[in-house]
Amino acid sequence: METQKIQTEGTRLLHGGDLYGAARAVGCKEGELLDFSSNINPLGVQPKVRRAICESMEGVEQYPDPLCRRLVQAIARREQVHPEQVLCGSGGADLIYRFAYARRPKKALLPAPTFGEYEEALIQTGTEPLFYELNQERQGESGMLEALTPELDAVFFCNPNNPTGLLTHRDFLLGLVEKAAGMGIFVFLDECFLDFSEDGESFSLIKYLEKFSNLILLRSFTKMYAIPGLRLGYVLSDNRKLLEAMRRAGQPWAVGGLAQAAGLAALEDRDFPARTRELVGRERAFLRQGLRKLGLQVYEGAANYLCFRAPGETRLYEKLLRQGILIRRCDNYRGLSREHYRVAVRGREENKRLLAALVQVGLTEGRQKDALS
Amino acid sequence: METQKIQTEGTRLLHGGDLYGAARAVGCKEGELLDFSSNINPLGVQPKVRRAICESMEGVEQYPDPLCRRLVQAIARREQVHPEQVLCGSGGADLIYRFAYARRPKKALLPAPTFGEYEEALIQTGTEPLFYELNQERQGESGMLEALTPELDAVFFCNPNNPTGLLTHRDFLLGLVEKAAGMGIFVFLDECFLDFSEDGESFSLIKYLEKFSNLILLRSFTKMYAIPGLRLGYVLSDNRKLLEAMRRAGQPWAVGGLAQAAGLAALEDRDFPARTRELVGRERAFLRQGLRKLGLQVYEGAANYLCFRAPGETRLYEKLLRQGILIRRCDNYRGLSREHYRVAVRGREENKRLLAALVQVGLTEGRQKDALS
Repeated sequence: METQKIQTEGTRLLHGGDLYGAARAVGCKEGELLDFSSNINPLGVQPKVRRAICESMEGVEQYPDPLCRRLVQAIARREQVHPEQVLCGSGGADLIYRFAYARRPKKALLPAPTFGEYEEALIQTGTEPLFYELNQERQGESGMLEALTPELDAVFFCNPNNPTGLLTHRDFLLGLVEKAAGMGIFVFLDECFLDFSEDGESFSLIKYLEKFSNLILLRSFTKMYAIPGLRLGYVLSDNRKLLEAMRRAGQPWAVGGLAQAAGLAALEDRDFPARTRELVGRERAFLRQGLRKLGLQVYEGAANYLCFRAPGETRLYEKLLRQGILIRRCDNYRGLSREHYRVAVRGREENKRLLAALVQVGLTEGRQKDALS
Repeated sequence: METQKIQTEGTRLLHGGDLYGAARAVGCKEGELLDFSSNINPLGVQPKVRRAICESMEGVEQYPDPLCRRLVQAIARREQVHPEQVLCGSGGADLIYRFAYARRPKKALLPAPTFGEYEEALIQTGTEPLFYELNQERQGESGMLEALTPELDAVFFCNPNNPTGLLTHRDFLLGLVEKAAGMGIFVFLDECFLDFSEDGESFSLIKYLEKFSNLILLRSFTKMYAIPGLRLGYVLSDNRKLLEAMRRAGQPWAVGGLAQAAGLAALEDRDFPARTRELVGRERAFLRQGLRKLGLQVYEGAANYLCFRAPGETRLYEKLLRQGILIRRCDNYRGLSREHYRVAVRGREENKRLLAALVQVGLTEGRQKDALS
């Protein structure tokens, strides 16, 4: 178990998904780049969702329902929770900031590496973050339980983790939440990508909301329903006081009317996540195998993205960008290096183009074997 | 001059624009209500904006540009400011919260009555608010200058004011900003409705951004371009450090891609605000005259809404709602009472329907004269 004090100085962490900036850097249009940096469902936006957005254009002249009442009902039905256990926000990131502002934790424990927005939000609330370095082969080792101390106010965890994609077993998480409950520590559990994992449900803590009022789950529409341009996510918790505080911790009209309409339409197709998992599972296996053949050290990720280390390769991002392909550098994740990258799992054709480009920039089975030897 | 301590207890202030809640209260659909509670341009969404939103549907699968680079450029051109003086947000309210979080003022001065979100945001930052009661006939009396003391960290002002619609002269505001500058106090000046006022430009402080680094102006797309369902606003300030702090005070992808596309399209039609002002000016005069004929005490508002007092009438909201018309109660504005209401200035037909409904619920010139005598 290792915890260490964070350096909060320095510039804002770099994000993935800055297609516009990347395109400008190589002098092309966004549409001309093949984007492997954002983890969006390769099936894309469902036609039904697209239709719903255009139809809801009529309503764009009205203020959106600040309480997202219809959408909350639909989410509650889908997730089999009580509507009062649901709070919608303007994408998952909005809800991370709302949690931070609502609680203003003095100290928080974060795994490393993990999604950078937890730390960014905690910088805003002057929180002292402590880091637990995850074992990069498997997640959730019992050491993290030992890192829980009563001075902490919050723990963040991401399952499957971003960017590694590694899944953490429910038993470990239950132990974490239970121990945290005894110490009055909130557990912010980000399950935004769990829907992409086979048997993901068996990893979720959604069935334990009522048992643990210190538990808050984050879910997102952005990734599964491929609507990052519309900003929609939600949290689930049995702690109504916390949800009310989060609702008040930002503007009342966070979720636009078009986003609410899109969310309602998205939830209507109950089979879509399963169809997605099937495709993503197949393509993840294909892409992982291809990356490994090129000598890359690929994590056993279970999400719709794969993280790998390219030994000796610290300029892969730039090289691929010149080929018109945008991937995610991972050197701004704590514990990862300039040799680490993350790529989305996309459709077969795109995945092949990525693999071909990797060969083109000089990655070959032979060369990499040399590099590793 | 009067300042007083605020009561921060109690439930969240009621908002206008909760069409869904109002419709549910009388058992009808939102579309069936005639909404006079939201102050939206009666010309509605421009076809060009509507088209741009539908066309940008393609981009909904991409994360929006977190820096809104194209939109910022377009706003800067329109407003004749430097792009670095512009920060976009998810509607005006988002930017009010970002300002509060970025500055965390210990003490702030607010006029009363005024838009409730300043106070709501300051509750979140534990700010002690002091209130200056505006003269309700004309705004900006010199007493507010005397209320400026070095212990303050921020002053909020809304021009034209919400809900009264009263305009404040530039000379007074310049004096306010200048005195505040000398004391290290930020002035948050909300000009969201100024575009609806004839000769509004001559009331704006936009030409003084560079002179005063303690000045921050709030502008909105929501009202003029009738897109509250999409959430888009911006602030202007020469204080880059403040804008950067506000950018970091919330999620990086605050403004959705569809909202950015809508904003770009909206700015293309340079004549639209002037056409709007012409219509609103005519209809405001018509509606004001009609309301006055019914014995209502109407403020000399210069925005796309009118505020009035209905002496002896504390149930007008409920009465009109039963007629299918939603207006804005003003009893949750400091300094206003249950006899105060606000209505949007809409098209001639709608305005006539409002006046007819007021007669129907029992308002007549004679009766009101009695009530006033």
